[in-house]
Amino acid sequence: VTANGIITLLTDFGTRDVYVGVMRGVILAIAPRARLVDLTHEVPPQDVFAGAMLLRSAVEAFPDGTVHLAVVDPGVGSAREPVAVFTERGILVGPDNGLLQPAAERLGLCEVRRLDREELFRHPVSRTFHGRDIFAPVAAHLASGLAGTSVGSLCAGLHPLPMPAVRRAAGALHGEVIHVDHYGNLITNIAAGEILNFPADRVSVRIAGVSISPVSPSYAAVSEGALLAIIGSWGTLEIAVRDGSAAGRLAVGRGTAVTVSAI
Amino acid sequence: VTANGIITLLTDFGTRDVYVGVMRGVILAIAPRARLVDLTHEVPPQDVFAGAMLLRSAVEAFPDGTVHLAVVDPGVGSAREPVAVFTERGILVGPDNGLLQPAAERLGLCEVRRLDREELFRHPVSRTFHGRDIFAPVAAHLASGLAGTSVGSLCAGLHPLPMPAVRRAAGALHGEVIHVDHYGNLITNIAAGEILNFPADRVSVRIAGVSISPVSPSYAAVSEGALLAIIGSWGTLEIAVRDGSAAGRLAVGRGTAVTVSAI
Amino acid sequence: VTANGIITLLTDFGTRDVYVGVMRGVILAIAPRARLVDLTHEVPPQDVFAGAMLLRSAVEAFPDGTVHLAVVDPGVGSAREPVAVFTERGILVGPDNGLLQPAAERLGLCEVRRLDREELFRHPVSRTFHGRDIFAPVAAHLASGLAGTSVGSLCAGLHPLPMPAVRRAAGALHGEVIHVDHYGNLITNIAAGEILNFPADRVSVRIAGVSISPVSPSYAAVSEGALLAIIGSWGTLEIAVRDGSAAGRLAVGRGTAVTVSAI
Repeated sequence: VTANGIITLLTDFGTRDVYVGVMRGVILAIAPRARLVDLTHEVPPQDVFAGAMLLRSAVEAFPDGTVHLAVVDPGVGSAREPVAVFTERGILVGPDNGLLQPAAERLGLCEVRRLDREELFRHPVSRTFHGRDIFAPVAAHLASGLAGTSVGSLCAGLHPLPMPAVRRAAGALHGEVIHVDHYGNLITNIAAGEILNFPADRVSVRIAGVSISPVSPSYAAVSEGALLAIIGSWGTLEIAVRDGSAAGRLAVGRGTAVTVSAI
Repeated sequence: VTANGIITLLTDFGTRDVYVGVMRGVILAIAPRARLVDLTHEVPPQDVFAGAMLLRSAVEAFPDGTVHLAVVDPGVGSAREPVAVFTERGILVGPDNGLLQPAAERLGLCEVRRLDREELFRHPVSRTFHGRDIFAPVAAHLASGLAGTSVGSLCAGLHPLPMPAVRRAAGALHGEVIHVDHYGNLITNIAAGEILNFPADRVSVRIAGVSISPVSPSYAAVSEGALLAIIGSWGTLEIAVRDGSAAGRLAVGRGTAVTVSAI
Repeated sequence: VTANGIITLLTDFGTRDVYVGVMRGVILAIAPRARLVDLTHEVPPQDVFAGAMLLRSAVEAFPDGTVHLAVVDPGVGSAREPVAVFTERGILVGPDNGLLQPAAERLGLCEVRRLDREELFRHPVSRTFHGRDIFAPVAAHLASGLAGTSVGSLCAGLHPLPMPAVRRAAGALHGEVIHVDHYGNLITNIAAGEILNFPADRVSVRIAGVSISPVSPSYAAVSEGALLAIIGSWGTLEIAVRDGSAAGRLAVGRGTAVTVSAI
């Protein structure tokens, strides 16, 4: 795809420091016309899985040709490779530690290149901040139209992110919570399509010892403060409390088991 | 007014998730040249009143033709209407639940349209995320120059936001705290103009059992750590502590009564 | 230098309010083509030293001609002067209270001008929000190409920021922690160049009763959870915990003494 000049940013750098600001400066020094768009900088520190889930849930909304720069990089300075991933719809730039893989699958993975053209980097390259010295400059060059073949040599593929699978057994689906959002909504890995295999009025969702039935069409279908199950904006089953926090109500978090069955 | 290409964003989505990032992607896919400007994304979850006060205090600073996209929407999926509000100075897009009304009054309300042209929406339209599926696409089309008449049919008006009124009795003004800011400043609903009706050196402000007099011309007019009353940047009476937090000192918050009287 | 149209923003305004959004609106009303780039808005309230360290660490990354707008201003409304600082590489705009001085030194200070051309301001000028009424409009005019001589009269120089010095005694360096970042990394004022004067394998770093040796080439050179000393992205000695928080582990913060010596 042809770069459209947009670069999204997703990191665990937080917003109290100027690390993200510094990356923006490095990008604009190379690509003065780039459009910078924040996804989030509040991935929990070094939590590659959380970053990967958030990145995957965001990339589809962007127009073709967007460059997605993502840095959650506990192994900075170690052997993990810096890569650019070319997909049918856009380009991903970051460490090859699982962070980019779910998003790459969603956008249609084409090829992966190791970032080994040092003339593209900011020098001297630090051992602690590849976001500034490697990933931001390469993303800026790609957003400016540099050919993918110029950023480095071909790799066999991406390291996969270990993903919790949904298990089907005895007519039930066994999944889990993969993200807790700002509202306390519990987002699961059980796809909307899987739920449709159950009779709509006889589906029961079980989490933390509580059963919820049926799946609601909207928050407004239940009374204020009620617990509900719904197909959420991630396209998967979500457990929520209307105008409240399901994570708080049930005192659960990521990894909590969720079972869907027919009544 | 003619759209100037700027879209401001105000939500209660927080910054830990990628919900705001997804809205930005949806907007840029429709309006690649739009200028996106964040007001805040930290409106307390589902707090329509807080969102309305913040939106009203921000909109005047923007140039004519700005589109203001605001989403604090506890009723998403229910009967509240999605609307676009055309004013003398700009356009507001969001749910008709009171959120937009104070800002619309401030900018000079002209007409309100229900967003019922589904061809403008992102499909499928979810039941949980109208920010992404309805409000962002419509705001993007409006910022790109789509005529207001094309977004939907005329409504009679906006639902009003229940607002605490300032009461005048026995030569005194009885108002309240409508917002506590990041510094702990207590912003009231008592307009600067009302205070001018009192003799400058004989005004007394009473809050939480404490009297403050006179109204200070600046923070620097009192010593460090002192409590003061001042006309703040919202154009209303504010209670502050120099280089400190009035909310912390007085242990009060939104809704606290404030009385202005002559000594 | 010629303005490049980029304006960076650094404040202690936080992100819960719309104060930053209002400044953006004021800027765009004057300079519709300005590129706004956030450094951070989470400088601890009224902490001029923290703001100055963050600003200094960010400015070099930006292209020549950038305008850096910084507001941490406990003395708003008092005698401290609003200034614009012209350097070899860019322009700084903010209060003359020490905030801008370290960044100005780093960029090569040329001249300082007091902002006394009131026709450039937003009127009426409040006593509480010079960010909106003075600094943002002047930064916008400068980013749009207004000549430096037009913003005000020459000053003798900037008020210096009181900076902790590194002391050399008995073959050791005595410095201190000047910033604690989001990860809990402890950033010191001891420059990388100073460390190079010690034999690489015989340097010992002492902090809070703990000795660390040698200085690590990368986070990955130590095992997970280990305490390390490293040359960090600020170009100075940093104390960190691999995949953890050194500030939490050692229960220390800004101002903590750090000693470098030969074993």
